[in-house]
Amino acid sequence: MFTHNKKLQYTVRVSEPNPVLASLILEQFGGPQGELAAAMRYFTQALAEDDPGRKDMLLDIATEELSHLEVIGSIVAMLNKGVKGELAEATQTEADLYRSLTQGGDSHTQGILYGGGPALTNSSGVPWTAAYIDTIGDPACDLRSNIAAEARAKIVYERLINVTDDAGVKEALGFLMTREIAHQKSFEKALYAIEDNFPPGKLQGIPEYADLYVNASQGEGDAEGPWNAGPQWRRLDDVVGGVPVDGGDGDASVGLTRSEQSDLSSFAARTMSNPAINPRTGAELGKSGAA
Amino acid sequence: MFTHNKKLQYTVRVSEPNPVLASLILEQFGGPQGELAAAMRYFTQALAEDDPGRKDMLLDIATEELSHLEVIGSIVAMLNKGVKGELAEATQTEADLYRSLTQGGDSHTQGILYGGGPALTNSSGVPWTAAYIDTIGDPACDLRSNIAAEARAKIVYERLINVTDDAGVKEALGFLMTREIAHQKSFEKALYAIEDNFPPGKLQGIPEYADLYVNASQGEGDAEGPWNAGPQWRRLDDVVGGVPVDGGDGDASVGLTRSEQSDLSSFAARTMSNPAINPRTGAELGKSGAA
Amino acid sequence: MFTHNKKLQYTVRVSEPNPVLASLILEQFGGPQGELAAAMRYFTQALAEDDPGRKDMLLDIATEELSHLEVIGSIVAMLNKGVKGELAEATQTEADLYRSLTQGGDSHTQGILYGGGPALTNSSGVPWTAAYIDTIGDPACDLRSNIAAEARAKIVYERLINVTDDAGVKEALGFLMTREIAHQKSFEKALYAIEDNFPPGKLQGIPEYADLYVNASQGEGDAEGPWNAGPQWRRLDDVVGGVPVDGGDGDASVGLTRSEQSDLSSFAARTMSNPAINPRTGAELGKSGAA
Amino acid sequence: MFTHNKKLQYTVRVSEPNPVLASLILEQFGGPQGELAAAMRYFTQALAEDDPGRKDMLLDIATEELSHLEVIGSIVAMLNKGVKGELAEATQTEADLYRSLTQGGDSHTQGILYGGGPALTNSSGVPWTAAYIDTIGDPACDLRSNIAAEARAKIVYERLINVTDDAGVKEALGFLMTREIAHQKSFEKALYAIEDNFPPGKLQGIPEYADLYVNASQGEGDAEGPWNAGPQWRRLDDVVGGVPVDGGDGDASVGLTRSEQSDLSSFAARTMSNPAINPRTGAELGKSGAA
Amino acid sequence: MFTHNKKLQYTVRVSEPNPVLASLILEQFGGPQGELAAAMRYFTQALAEDDPGRKDMLLDIATEELSHLEVIGSIVAMLNKGVKGELAEATQTEADLYRSLTQGGDSHTQGILYGGGPALTNSSGVPWTAAYIDTIGDPACDLRSNIAAEARAKIVYERLINVTDDAGVKEALGFLMTREIAHQKSFEKALYAIEDNFPPGKLQGIPEYADLYVNASQGEGDAEGPWNAGPQWRRLDDVVGGVPVDGGDGDASVGLTRSEQSDLSSFAARTMSNPAINPRTGAELGKSGAA
Amino acid sequence: MFTHNKKLQYTVRVSEPNPVLASLILEQFGGPQGELAAAMRYFTQALAEDDPGRKDMLLDIATEELSHLEVIGSIVAMLNKGVKGELAEATQTEADLYRSLTQGGDSHTQGILYGGGPALTNSSGVPWTAAYIDTIGDPACDLRSNIAAEARAKIVYERLINVTDDAGVKEALGFLMTREIAHQKSFEKALYAIEDNFPPGKLQGIPEYADLYVNASQGEGDAEGPWNAGPQWRRLDDVVGGVPVDGGDGDASVGLTRSEQSDLSSFAARTMSNPAINPRTGAELGKSGAA
Repeated sequence: MFTHNKKLQYTVRVSEPNPVLASLILEQFGGPQGELAAAMRYFTQALAEDDPGRKDMLLDIATEELSHLEVIGSIVAMLNKGVKGELAEATQTEADLYRSLTQGGDSHTQGILYGGGPALTNSSGVPWTAAYIDTIGDPACDLRSNIAAEARAKIVYERLINVTDDAGVKEALGFLMTREIAHQKSFEKALYAIEDNFPPGKLQGIPEYADLYVNASQGEGDAEGPWNAGPQWRRLDDVVGGVPVDGGDGDASVGLTRSEQSDLSSFAARTMSNPAINPRTGAELGKSGAA
Repeated sequence: MFTHNKKLQYTVRVSEPNPVLASLILEQFGGPQGELAAAMRYFTQALAEDDPGRKDMLLDIATEELSHLEVIGSIVAMLNKGVKGELAEATQTEADLYRSLTQGGDSHTQGILYGGGPALTNSSGVPWTAAYIDTIGDPACDLRSNIAAEARAKIVYERLINVTDDAGVKEALGFLMTREIAHQKSFEKALYAIEDNFPPGKLQGIPEYADLYVNASQGEGDAEGPWNAGPQWRRLDDVVGGVPVDGGDGDASVGLTRSEQSDLSSFAARTMSNPAINPRTGAELGKSGAA
Repeated sequence: MFTHNKKLQYTVRVSEPNPVLASLILEQFGGPQGELAAAMRYFTQALAEDDPGRKDMLLDIATEELSHLEVIGSIVAMLNKGVKGELAEATQTEADLYRSLTQGGDSHTQGILYGGGPALTNSSGVPWTAAYIDTIGDPACDLRSNIAAEARAKIVYERLINVTDDAGVKEALGFLMTREIAHQKSFEKALYAIEDNFPPGKLQGIPEYADLYVNASQGEGDAEGPWNAGPQWRRLDDVVGGVPVDGGDGDASVGLTRSEQSDLSSFAARTMSNPAINPRTGAELGKSGAA
Repeated sequence: MFTHNKKLQYTVRVSEPNPVLASLILEQFGGPQGELAAAMRYFTQALAEDDPGRKDMLLDIATEELSHLEVIGSIVAMLNKGVKGELAEATQTEADLYRSLTQGGDSHTQGILYGGGPALTNSSGVPWTAAYIDTIGDPACDLRSNIAAEARAKIVYERLINVTDDAGVKEALGFLMTREIAHQKSFEKALYAIEDNFPPGKLQGIPEYADLYVNASQGEGDAEGPWNAGPQWRRLDDVVGGVPVDGGDGDASVGLTRSEQSDLSSFAARTMSNPAINPRTGAELGKSGAA
Repeated sequence: MFTHNKKLQYTVRVSEPNPVLASLILEQFGGPQGELAAAMRYFTQALAEDDPGRKDMLLDIATEELSHLEVIGSIVAMLNKGVKGELAEATQTEADLYRSLTQGGDSHTQGILYGGGPALTNSSGVPWTAAYIDTIGDPACDLRSNIAAEARAKIVYERLINVTDDAGVKEALGFLMTREIAHQKSFEKALYAIEDNFPPGKLQGIPEYADLYVNASQGEGDAEGPWNAGPQWRRLDDVVGGVPVDGGDGDASVGLTRSEQSDLSSFAARTMSNPAINPRTGAELGKSGAA
Repeated sequence: MFTHNKKLQYTVRVSEPNPVLASLILEQFGGPQGELAAAMRYFTQALAEDDPGRKDMLLDIATEELSHLEVIGSIVAMLNKGVKGELAEATQTEADLYRSLTQGGDSHTQGILYGGGPALTNSSGVPWTAAYIDTIGDPACDLRSNIAAEARAKIVYERLINVTDDAGVKEALGFLMTREIAHQKSFEKALYAIEDNFPPGKLQGIPEYADLYVNASQGEGDAEGPWNAGPQWRRLDDVVGGVPVDGGDGDASVGLTRSEQSDLSSFAARTMSNPAINPRTGAELGKSGAA
């Protein structure tokens, strides 16, 4: 069960309203690398988790991410505080309001549609979607997903810090960025505390394909590194000559009943593109001067 | 530039049509952990990449994933081959067709809307979306995302193998699953070949928050492990007492102009929910017997 | 700031696993009328709210909805507990697993893609989207939206109760349903404690159109009631004769520069569908026997 | 059956093209509070409705909203009329066209992708989705949803009026805004003409939870009002001590077969994050200077 | 302006409720090839259209498609009429209701979430999206899109007719299918009445690339037909040898300032995946038995 | 199977970085008329295709479109090359970076979220969705869809050419535009090489409705042309008088069991909006001065 205390985890001091900056910062409120995505990623994992250590850790971090959602949302709310009142009370001229809403970013939609409140969209106004969440219910995968997600969130905070010169905003973003680093460390520990975590799952790979590197892109720029060269790798350079790798005919086939075959034959005959004719086409009808 | 050879990378031999199984397997064609997501994740990274080794590797693997998209799509096409002809030619009774399309999974939509062709949806019919792609243009993040994505794809293949008893399908899925293991290895090598990859990015974290563990979820079930205990961690258990962590007042504030303040005051006054009255409400009007 | 206690707000006792029922109940986990939508609707309102009473109420209820998200997610996790282990360990035959996943609802995707964990989708597998949230930052609107949302959530719980005969599930759903009733009451009180809440906003309507009822649908079935008849209403029955209601010409016009007019004329001339000819078309080319 | 008359319900007189303003106004064409959402909300309700009075009212208002969609779409078309011709005929320099399309809002996409025609997107270019429609097929809910939707649409019109100084646009928006007020009145009458409309549905709430207020958010800012205080409310302040409210153990449980338990145990053992070790992790490998 | 008459354009006589069939038929209510997509495709075109003949035709057909939306929605409403009452009144046992909702298709969501009303989703429950609409504001394109859309809608109706043995449903679907044929004819006439409609737009293609066929897929199965062979085509078979077709170096380049170059160099150096080392990786740490 | 060569199909020479232009050009990378949509439209068709000529053509063109995706993505990458380094290395002031990211278009999101890499979104930042793909598995439909799609892509390229004065960008866009013309020709040939392609499918239309034109939109502006007049058309002008066209009663009906009827009656009685009363409503409670 969740409870809430009205203090923020980190104090938010914004120097002055700036709806364009607000719209950039939405990236971490309702964007793919933002705090709702983080909270929901870990919370959904926690609900299905049976390992006591991981379950506790996932609940701890999910809960903290909700508190970060509150911090980042409060920054957005402060940055939009000016436009909120102006749009509701309309004491400025229309032209002034129009100008203040069309200076850049996605601030126009934040004002007109959301009235200056923080909306669960990214910086382009795209509504948050659970398609951002990659939880699949296997810990050796989900922890890797969490590690990657924390790394991404760290960088988006870094970019926001780089474009902001409001000292209070910068400071709060720095705190949030640092917490992603700490969370990544926790998830790393939990992953490697699974003593047999690679490959994930129970099935082992088929040996002949597990150390094969397919050099599918060739030409100037072909390069070597530990990811495709060295004793552990078998490398396939004659890619076309080497298919199919299973030694079969490289076709797709299926066993069909006579009735299924008959239907498919009828369909094929009825819809054949006859290669032997050169039909007059709509494009030809549509060319200037065609009759 | 891409080229194509009509042989598949792995031969597809399906024993008989099965549109329900086809709809399950769509998960790896147009689902979030599927082959299009993989190909596009690596391809978008490759286009912006300036590191020659990684660029080559990303192009190699992106290209191979397109070939896997072809293999998995061919399996789906074979499994739907029966319904494709039956629906087009309608030589069966309506009741038989109705039954064959409503046996489970998402096979009804695959037949009615897509005519038995493999559609870029997941197993529930949700259209593929680029929201699945988590590329952010930083190699220390993107490689971690790739490692996690390969791990997830491996597990979804494992689950599909576990529910399929068609030997040819099982074999092709086993090949595809193994290739995800190999790709994960390549991405791991490329990540750790970045000699300073943690934390990602250029900014370091703020020391006092980088080793802090916030025990935000408490009660029976609280646990310890290397992710929150040991010499590297400072642990915050008095979570409420400890906020805000920065020692400020834990509020959000913004500097406003007099005019902005005035508008906000007017708005507040006009829309105050007066705590001192007990208004009659719509719910009360709506109760049975209310007059 | 949020904190979490590991006890649920309401004890969840599920009699036996049932992945199909799990997929139905997802409607209230990741569906449009579900608990995440509720929590986020109130939380986003709270962040921008300046009225102290409403802000407190919105935070109270948002926080409770997160606890409900945990209860409903725990029900789903329990109902999927069987399939979770079976799919990971694969100790059953493939055919048994296939059957258990294709019995109905969206259980196949819940198993294959999410591994039996509760996913933020509705009962059809559609990922949760912030498009479900109708917060617009005006309290006289947002409270009405909240009232309606609580009413809808109440009914979806009622329907789920009606299809479930698992006593423990039924009991927990009954608790959750009742809390929606209580929340609706709170929102009603807060709305009507705004002493001037209709029409919402600052601008009054134009008197001649504010009590007009347009009888736009006519024919057998035309009916009268307090919504369109009685002293308060002026009713327009000659709908076509009555347009435009402003007495203008009913056209759309815009002032254009000479250059803009010239471009539009060129475009129009270049792309005119000439009414004076009867062209041969692609459809005619494509008719059987056309030459 | 629908019919159409070429006159608009309200005459549209736009003073001059302005693609940025056009993109703001799209909010009411293809946005969540816009006219298509309104029309489809009422139309889908009407189709399933068996109450003759409501069915007629819903069809009347749905039809009128389609006429409003036409008015608002005509405003957008007029505001985009300049860019439409310029982009098609390209008689200006590229630099002039580039400038006219990148002045703000979402006008660039409206020009490049939609050629200046009104597109069913909101002001950020997000395509309209039926996820905006909250119809659930219960009149005591759907009418409340309609009331709230009309209130929201009223405010979005008010905001658009506040940012526009084109007199003709302002006038037409004022008409549309007023009609939302009138529609809200009709829906209010229809709701309260259901003599027992609260709580919606057939099931009553469980008495002990129906008047309970959970003070889930605490700290400075806690407030009282008719929504949580007074004789009708029982208030729970010791939130953590009070869970679970049912007096159970606050855990989630499910009855499992022996085989299910066995699979889960195997899975748990195989994937345990061992709390007793302090593993070396990827993050440690990736730190600068790590070997 | 739209008006509505309560008679349907075609009488709907459904023999008995069938929620599974209802969910299949939703394909033409809220699916990509359905009637809302058709109505909105033509309506958005009409609003921006300046050609009087096409504008009238587009309004005629858009309006008729709304009437078809009503017919198809009425079929769905009738097929769901049984479940609507049962779910609301709950006079059956829970088990009976559960069974009736989980027989296949997407009927469970239609019942639980939408209460048996027709929802703007496809047959898988995917909400309708304006992403289905391909209007771009050029008549030579939009008419081609309309022709294709009518063809697709015709086929989806044909498939639905093939799976339905309810005579009344079949008859109404037959009417709707036929109207798509008639609409396609109208759009064909309007397209070819543009006397110079190919290529669409004002710019001509670059001659050397306009008749080139790139044989990008090779191997067994290479075929010839009028689409790639004959006097009008120049064919490129040596695809790799022939790139880049412009005779340049086939690379991508951009002019950068010194400062931009410097930043990119720093970034590259900082994040180089060093090809000369063979780093120990997370995957190696995670292998069973790794220390 | 796909292979890749590192040379581009067309050399990309960009004069200088321009993130705003980059965001416009994204329309053809991840937008609805862009190259991924094209590639996936043809590739999904190819997988299910049994006609050897079409299968080969679809694979050829799908593969070439992937090469075009690479060209257009490379243009975007070059245009964003400046911001990529600046944001990662942060050697400029925050204010300079802020300015460079908020100059227009969607460049702010491209920088902050995607780090300057080409993302699979359109020019407004909307993620690519498979909802753009209209493949339905019938060649007489799919080829028409392809023809229309090529026409639309041609026009979007034309518009981009019209707003760009970078010579290298213009040249590459001209090449890509021309290829769409060539592809349209191929698809036209393949369509008309189906000797009986209209109407698509196997079922013929009902004669009395196949040549009927419904004049559903009336009033000033009614027009005639070959699409609604001439010997081939029967025209219905008395639209309201003429419904239902089948001579039935124009109602929707369904056969119900006694139990279903009883439930519906109970539901109707319970939720009747009583037309005979004039209830006091929430709107009246909410009016200023209401008691």
